[in-house]
Amino acid sequence: MSNQLLKGKKGIISGALNNMSIAWKVAEKAYEQGAEIVLTNAPIAMRMGEINELSAKIGNAPIIAADATNMEDLDNLFTKSMEHFGGKADFILHSIGMSPNVRKGKHYTEVNYEWYKQTLDVSATSLHKMLATAWKKDAINDWGSVVALTYIAAQRIFPDYNDMADAKSLLESIARSFGYHYGTAKKVRINTISQSPTVTTAGSGVKGFDGFINYSEAMSPLGNADANACADYCVAMFSDLTRYVTMQNLFHDGGFSITGVTQEVVEKFATKE
Amino acid sequence: MSNQLLKGKKGIISGALNNMSIAWKVAEKAYEQGAEIVLTNAPIAMRMGEINELSAKIGNAPIIAADATNMEDLDNLFTKSMEHFGGKADFILHSIGMSPNVRKGKHYTEVNYEWYKQTLDVSATSLHKMLATAWKKDAINDWGSVVALTYIAAQRIFPDYNDMADAKSLLESIARSFGYHYGTAKKVRINTISQSPTVTTAGSGVKGFDGFINYSEAMSPLGNADANACADYCVAMFSDLTRYVTMQNLFHDGGFSITGVTQEVVEKFATKE
Amino acid sequence: MSNQLLKGKKGIISGALNNMSIAWKVAEKAYEQGAEIVLTNAPIAMRMGEINELSAKIGNAPIIAADATNMEDLDNLFTKSMEHFGGKADFILHSIGMSPNVRKGKHYTEVNYEWYKQTLDVSATSLHKMLATAWKKDAINDWGSVVALTYIAAQRIFPDYNDMADAKSLLESIARSFGYHYGTAKKVRINTISQSPTVTTAGSGVKGFDGFINYSEAMSPLGNADANACADYCVAMFSDLTRYVTMQNLFHDGGFSITGVTQEVVEKFATKE
Amino acid sequence: MSNQLLKGKKGIISGALNNMSIAWKVAEKAYEQGAEIVLTNAPIAMRMGEINELSAKIGNAPIIAADATNMEDLDNLFTKSMEHFGGKADFILHSIGMSPNVRKGKHYTEVNYEWYKQTLDVSATSLHKMLATAWKKDAINDWGSVVALTYIAAQRIFPDYNDMADAKSLLESIARSFGYHYGTAKKVRINTISQSPTVTTAGSGVKGFDGFINYSEAMSPLGNADANACADYCVAMFSDLTRYVTMQNLFHDGGFSITGVTQEVVEKFATKE
Repeated sequence: MSNQLLKGKKGIISGALNNMSIAWKVAEKAYEQGAEIVLTNAPIAMRMGEINELSAKIGNAPIIAADATNMEDLDNLFTKSMEHFGGKADFILHSIGMSPNVRKGKHYTEVNYEWYKQTLDVSATSLHKMLATAWKKDAINDWGSVVALTYIAAQRIFPDYNDMADAKSLLESIARSFGYHYGTAKKVRINTISQSPTVTTAGSGVKGFDGFINYSEAMSPLGNADANACADYCVAMFSDLTRYVTMQNLFHDGGFSITGVTQEVVEKFATKE
Repeated sequence: MSNQLLKGKKGIISGALNNMSIAWKVAEKAYEQGAEIVLTNAPIAMRMGEINELSAKIGNAPIIAADATNMEDLDNLFTKSMEHFGGKADFILHSIGMSPNVRKGKHYTEVNYEWYKQTLDVSATSLHKMLATAWKKDAINDWGSVVALTYIAAQRIFPDYNDMADAKSLLESIARSFGYHYGTAKKVRINTISQSPTVTTAGSGVKGFDGFINYSEAMSPLGNADANACADYCVAMFSDLTRYVTMQNLFHDGGFSITGVTQEVVEKFATKE
Repeated sequence: MSNQLLKGKKGIISGALNNMSIAWKVAEKAYEQGAEIVLTNAPIAMRMGEINELSAKIGNAPIIAADATNMEDLDNLFTKSMEHFGGKADFILHSIGMSPNVRKGKHYTEVNYEWYKQTLDVSATSLHKMLATAWKKDAINDWGSVVALTYIAAQRIFPDYNDMADAKSLLESIARSFGYHYGTAKKVRINTISQSPTVTTAGSGVKGFDGFINYSEAMSPLGNADANACADYCVAMFSDLTRYVTMQNLFHDGGFSITGVTQEVVEKFATKE
Repeated sequence: MSNQLLKGKKGIISGALNNMSIAWKVAEKAYEQGAEIVLTNAPIAMRMGEINELSAKIGNAPIIAADATNMEDLDNLFTKSMEHFGGKADFILHSIGMSPNVRKGKHYTEVNYEWYKQTLDVSATSLHKMLATAWKKDAINDWGSVVALTYIAAQRIFPDYNDMADAKSLLESIARSFGYHYGTAKKVRINTISQSPTVTTAGSGVKGFDGFINYSEAMSPLGNADANACADYCVAMFSDLTRYVTMQNLFHDGGFSITGVTQEVVEKFATKE
């Protein structure tokens, strides 16, 4: 595609850990479509990741380390981004999530509450903090677009998703709440994209991920959406083609969310005694 | 339970074909709770059914044959019911559904459109016709309660449910639309109960019902709700305990609707290569 | 925008009555983005409209009259379109709706049932008929995209919208049901776009449309979306950027659907005694 | 009503501050229906409240002070309750919510994040903590019922509701998540009731509550549900009539949630120039 759908637009992309990350693909595709990018990630994630390689591929995009739960880091992120852009941002991708309870195998019924707070803070409140920082610094252009990645566990239970489900519910609520205020004041739209389970470094950490992703595939008329397709959808949401879509949770899941059962799944249960 | 939750209330119950019918259980339970009942069914369904036996068990409730798509039959139903009750009704159960396309095994992508119209007319518009007749004759007391039975296929696809899914969507819309008008004018509340798949004469006609009901059981934290439990819920909805609930679609499904996957289901997909 | 997002794609667009129509804008924008178009409309609507003017503007797109409730007309539409395209279609816009009950001012509680059937047939079943015809003739390319326009009255009551609410619920159900089958078989995606109330010839026929559109404006953080913005969104949905979005109802409404109340609206109720 | 719908059942009720509280009404109604009650509240709320008066009215129900964010307090609450009941509880009401940001008039876009954490901890995580404590101590009988009170701000934006909206979204997610585990393991059901805005000590603290409650009244076909009606609904949800309803968010709102607009509201916008 030689289109320039994001020509002249400037965007901040968080969460590109390595080339399996959805955020990585978003950065590549947005750049391809003419956007100028700033990359950001938590200092610790950057040490693990290969973000320099990504930066090189997309016109030496600056990499600004920021812990998204830390207001000073976020202030610095927006200050530096605006300096680099010579103005405000047009789009932001929030792709941040982490649960110590998941990592350490704590069952949902007996989570550690300090970790639970961390799950919420890192995976959800960080969106509020990014937006509040942008708001205070007036760092997003009118009709700008913010997308946060989420999962259908916010609506329905997937037991191994654990307290990340609660974090995603909170994240989606923050997108709606802040979407109201930012929309009313500045025409900035804020949406969440509820993505198929995706084989990323983050995704594959979830227990039972294997059976889970197979089930999801079998329950999706189009199959699971992959990271590349998700990046395409993000590009559409950042573009001017979707200016009146706001405060929505958008399923990008091959039809999973609307499928009660498929032939393939029913058959596994047909012979049960 | 020796409670008299529906003491003094009068209700019209449609759809009691035989003792596997949800409507049959509702009639029994409502009678037990002190209600006076009128039974109604399509003339053809009555020839197949054992409704006289039910009538005898619930104080010789009158049986008034009515094709629920026929305005004259419905007029007669309400006239006779009001004569019998010596006044208006307090509650109505709509438990009517039938699809010629399902019966004759027409695939959804190639339904017969005359049959499709019949599916909609019998399974959905019949609710509008019942309510419009009641409205015209002012046949429901203030704060009366109407319940129509539905299924989650109205929201998500279960391929074998075929055009009944469309009919249930329409039914739920009619409940909402009429619920607005009847609520505003007369405080009458109208809701749908979205019930687990239930082994009834109607339910078991659906192709692949076996695998389907097993899957549903495996996906419901409490298991599938049965006809008796559904009847209990109907009693609660007819009672004065739920006077401000209206225009809702109420899932009575052991948690199926909110369950993305269960351990038991994931396991079937874990070993897939 | 000089992008060619729909380059090489072929689409059938129904419902372009005049230059206030959403479908008209969709045709213009899709053409601008490189698509080849076939226009269709009901014979009666074409006599009222100025569709020839539109055709001239978009490369002399053929105009094929078709009553979307008539299977022979639809067969002819797809046959002729495939001849013209020299192949299958890539996208279809369904923008068809009409209620005799609304036109003739029948209150929802006393609709004429013959007209009610017509409302459903024209406004909803027509989508099924279009898709069943395309399915039978294998007239849509893999990964094709179908969009039908709808309104939030399918979920919530707007009293003057009358039986069109029921039709839109049915339409959305058909989109989901057919979306399952077409997705599984051919990767074709089917979605509905739930658009802000729009000042079109159709929209302005609704009683009380004035107060209604003002209310909607006051309740939408971004304001009501207009026909041009809706056309942009349709382009995004027809493009390859959204290939894994299917069976969804997508709100394009400036945030109306997620707004419980706004400051502006609350203030009208603040001084009430 | 002389029914004994909760005869033999034992319940723990939190949040009865004074006789305007919904929890107060629930305690009275549950007692009337034959239940044995333990009351609990935060120590600080008890100093402000008149809970002793309530205790006296419902058979000298024990009052056990507990900060619902404190695991030791909760452990003590369940230990003492089980001693008093001589066994497990059958139902629990969670009616706890508080936002320092609302109280101190912090705008949503600039909340204090320490207070935000408190809002979430007190208003939402407290439900998790209560349930985790009950789970650990096996303190709820099979088929027990837990209800938490919530508000539609969890789905749609009401600007003055501020960060309580996020807390309610989180609360509802916790009810779903824990409902899955408790349902699977012990048949315990967990639901939230989404209540009309109610004139209570808590409710009336919200800025602009006046216009807000009037708007809600005008938008509800049955009018706003009051605290008494809500208590009736809680009784129905605690009773055996609703054993297969779980993980649901149940609107008890006179139809508000399904009403897009009413005649009364449209009229305020009809003359706008």
